[in-house]
Amino acid sequence: MKKITASKLSTIPAPEKYLNGKAWINNFSTGNTAGCDIASVMFEPGARTHWHKHPTVQILLAEKGCGYIQTRGVERELMQPGDMVVIYPGEEHWHGAVPDQLFAHLAIQLEKDEGIISEVTNEEYFAINS
Amino acid sequence: MKKITASKLSTIPAPEKYLNGKAWINNFSTGNTAGCDIASVMFEPGARTHWHKHPTVQILLAEKGCGYIQTRGVERELMQPGDMVVIYPGEEHWHGAVPDQLFAHLAIQLEKDEGIISEVTNEEYFAINS
Repeated sequence: MKKITASKLSTIPAPEKYLNGKAWINNFSTGNTAGCDIASVMFEPGARTHWHKHPTVQILLAEKGCGYIQTRGVERELMQPGDMVVIYPGEEHWHGAVPDQLFAHLAIQLEKDEGIISEVTNEEYFAINS
Repeated sequence: MKKITASKLSTIPAPEKYLNGKAWINNFSTGNTAGCDIASVMFEPGARTHWHKHPTVQILLAEKGCGYIQTRGVERELMQPGDMVVIYPGEEHWHGAVPDQLFAHLAIQLEKDEGIISEVTNEEYFAINS
């Protein structure tokens, strides 16, 4: 058994290259022995990832606030606390906070990866039905 | 992408054969397509699982209240919101609420399984250092 105590984690800023705006990460670093990586990510209002995709499944579980998730070519969906989203390998997508609320989600990645990214433009983010 | 909306889940009572006391489960049913099963479990004060083990990794993430986790032969540990525990395949363990608080945790199971169980006695549960 391995215990990771929340009060001993260091929150780090999310790398700027992955997003538009600011987000904070608590990384549980379970990967080496657990077969998956788990992190809690808190987006400031209006912050969002770039478009990206992963080679393995990613699962997001909304924890606080209100956010968006969108896959390419499909209308965005709202995520509220307790909502879960499964993103399949290779699906291009972005996620982040709504403009006026923070959004925290747990991210579970079945294998570590760097992903492939491209920016979500302001036109895309503020479009009503894209 | 698959979205599982929290407000549409049905909370079910945990099967009695797995525990001592009462617990409630929100099952996200991600398993078939996501490669892991995720559920949120809420133990009433004093409720706990039986001793059990899994053939694959299990990860617990404390969400609310205060609980215990113990592996066989090692002192129990307290779990508070945000704390995570990785339980390795074959490690016999139990988890549950402290006597006077509820305890909710997320449980991530990398593969579905029935586990192998035996009851945590009151002597074990109320022992100070077991």
